[in-house]
Amino acid sequence: MSELRRDPITGRTVIIAPERLRPMALPLETLRGGSCPFCEGREAIAGREILAWRTPDHPHNGGGWRVRVVPNREPALRVESHYAEPADALFQRLGGLGAHEVIIESPDHGANWSTMTAYDLRVVLWAWRERIRDLRRDVRLKSFLIVKNVGAAAGATLDHAHSQLVALPFVPQHLEDERAGARARHDDTGSCAFCAVVDEEVRGGSRLVSTDDNTIAFTPFASRVPFETWVMSRRHGAAFDEETDEGLSAVAERLSDTLRRLYVALAAPPHTVLLHTAPVGEADRSSYHWHLEIIPRLSAESGLAWDGGIHVNPVAPEDAARHLRDSRRP
Amino acid sequence: MSELRRDPITGRTVIIAPERLRPMALPLETLRGGSCPFCEGREAIAGREILAWRTPDHPHNGGGWRVRVVPNREPALRVESHYAEPADALFQRLGGLGAHEVIIESPDHGANWSTMTAYDLRVVLWAWRERIRDLRRDVRLKSFLIVKNVGAAAGATLDHAHSQLVALPFVPQHLEDERAGARARHDDTGSCAFCAVVDEEVRGGSRLVSTDDNTIAFTPFASRVPFETWVMSRRHGAAFDEETDEGLSAVAERLSDTLRRLYVALAAPPHTVLLHTAPVGEADRSSYHWHLEIIPRLSAESGLAWDGGIHVNPVAPEDAARHLRDSRRP
Repeated sequence: MSELRRDPITGRTVIIAPERLRPMALPLETLRGGSCPFCEGREAIAGREILAWRTPDHPHNGGGWRVRVVPNREPALRVESHYAEPADALFQRLGGLGAHEVIIESPDHGANWSTMTAYDLRVVLWAWRERIRDLRRDVRLKSFLIVKNVGAAAGATLDHAHSQLVALPFVPQHLEDERAGARARHDDTGSCAFCAVVDEEVRGGSRLVSTDDNTIAFTPFASRVPFETWVMSRRHGAAFDEETDEGLSAVAERLSDTLRRLYVALAAPPHTVLLHTAPVGEADRSSYHWHLEIIPRLSAESGLAWDGGIHVNPVAPEDAARHLRDSRRP
Repeated sequence: MSELRRDPITGRTVIIAPERLRPMALPLETLRGGSCPFCEGREAIAGREILAWRTPDHPHNGGGWRVRVVPNREPALRVESHYAEPADALFQRLGGLGAHEVIIESPDHGANWSTMTAYDLRVVLWAWRERIRDLRRDVRLKSFLIVKNVGAAAGATLDHAHSQLVALPFVPQHLEDERAGARARHDDTGSCAFCAVVDEEVRGGSRLVSTDDNTIAFTPFASRVPFETWVMSRRHGAAFDEETDEGLSAVAERLSDTLRRLYVALAAPPHTVLLHTAPVGEADRSSYHWHLEIIPRLSAESGLAWDGGIHVNPVAPEDAARHLRDSRRP
C-alpha cells in the first residue's frame, strides 16, 4: 500500500508507492502500438470508466468515445485509504488517501495536442473540469493537480495521449508557495497578481506569444526553462472547475495554437503540461488564478535545479516568445 | 550578460543566462576523451586556476595536480556584476552577481567517486571547503551551493569528474524552506532536527546504510526518488566550511563507501550529489546541519515532481537501504 510521508525537516510530503513497480525494474519500458492499453477496442484493459465523452449509440465501457477517464492501474493514492495528521512525531506516515485517475485523451494512438483540433482539446478540458468538480465534493481532498507528460524525457511511460489527475488530502508545498505569493501581493495591491501579470504582458508584448480578448499565451518573465509557456484565461477565475463551456472553448483554441507553435519551433519536443488550480477554500477566490504551465523538457535538468532548486535558463523568454510568434504550422 | 529575475507570483529567483549557450543548440553534446578540457595537460583550456592541490615541484597552472578549481567558462553569475533588491516592481531584475566555479576532481579522465580512493575524495572536499571559506568573505554573497552531476541523465555535459560551486547573493527558496523547517523544530524541541533524525536512524536501523562514531549514510524517511541517500557528520555543524581536516577525512571515507555501494547496486547510475550548507548568518548555527544528498537519476522525472512538485517514489527507503547494506564491491 502507498503512504504519504512527511519529511521531518522541510515538512514536504512524498508519496511512497512500492506497488507502482518492482524495485530494480526501472526505468519503465514504453509500451508501443499494438500492445497499447489506451487504444479504442482495449477498454477492458484500460479499466472501468469513471467518465467518458461518447456518442449515445455506444455503450458504457465500450468504444465510440472521444475522451475516457479511468482509475490509474497502479494508483499512487486511493480514496479508500485513510489520512490523519499524526501527533508531533519526527517521522509522520499519513496514509495513502487521494485519487489518481488517467484521462485518455483520444481513441487514436497517434494523436497529440498539435494534431488534435481545438474541439478535441475542449473535450479533454471538459473531462478535467468534470472530474475535479466531482472530486471536490469529497471534503477530505484539499487540492487537485493535473499533469500531462509527453515523451520519455518528460517521464511519460505510455505514448498514447493522456493526462493524469492527482487529488491530495493536503496542499503541496509548491502550490502553497504560489498561493502564498499571490495572497501577499493581493493584500498589498488589492488585485490579483496573475491579472496584473497578464495586463503587463499584453501591454509590453515582448513575451507575448498570442492573445485575444479572452485568453493569452506568454513566456513568463522568470521562465525556468527554455520556451516555458503559460496559457490562461484573461478573465479572473481561481478554480478551473468553475470555468464555463465558453471559457473552456476559448482556452482550447489558445492551447491548440500554442502547442502547434511549440511543435514547429522545437520539433515535437518532450514536454509537460501542468494545470494549477485553486485548492479547496474560499480564501483564494480573489487572489488565485488558474493557469496552464507548458514546460518543454529539452534537456535533463542539472542537479542545481532539481526539486525546486535554482534554474539556470539559457534562453531569455523574450527570445523564446519572438521565436514562437514567428512559428506557425506551414 | 546573465541576470537574476524574480518570479512575480512565487518570488522564486531564476538565472537567465543567454550567453551560456546559443538558443536552439540544446542539448549540449558531451565531450569525450581526446577533446576533454579537464584532462591533465589541457590546463590552459580549462582556465586560470583559482585553487589547486598539487605537489610543490609543479608550477601554478601546470600539471601535477590532484584537484583544480577554475572559473566556469560560461558562468551563470559573476562577482563583477551588481545586485540590488529593487523597489516593489512586478518584474524584478536583480543583476547577475555571484560566483560560478568548476572543481576538476581528478587529472584522470576515467575516474569517478566509486574508483577514486577515500583520500582522493578528501582532497575534493578540501577544495570545496577552501572555496566556500574564501567566498564567504565577500559580504554580498549569502549562500553557497555545490552540485555534482554524473551522467547525461543528471544534466552533466562533461564526463570528466567535476563538481560546480554556485555562490548566490540571496538564499534560494529550497534552502530557505529547509532552514525554516529546521529552525521551527529547533524552537519547539531545543535541539537540531538533523541530529534528531540521525539519532533515530541509528537507533531504528531500517534505513541505515552504514555508520560509525563520526559519520552516517542513510536513505531518508521521505526519500523523493529510489535510493536517495544522505551522507553527513554525526557531530553537529551548520557550515561545511568549518569542518576540520579530520572531519573531512571521516566524511570522505563514508562517501567513498556509499558511492561504491550505489555503483554496485545500481550499475553506475547517473546521479547528482548536492552539498547543503548553512547560508550566511549566525541564526542557523544551532538549528542547521550541513549534509550531502545523493540523488540517483534513474528515470526522467514526471512533470508531477518537476520543480518541487509531488514526488511519487516506487521504492521504499527501507528496501533501498537493505539493498545498499548488502551491496559491497566484490
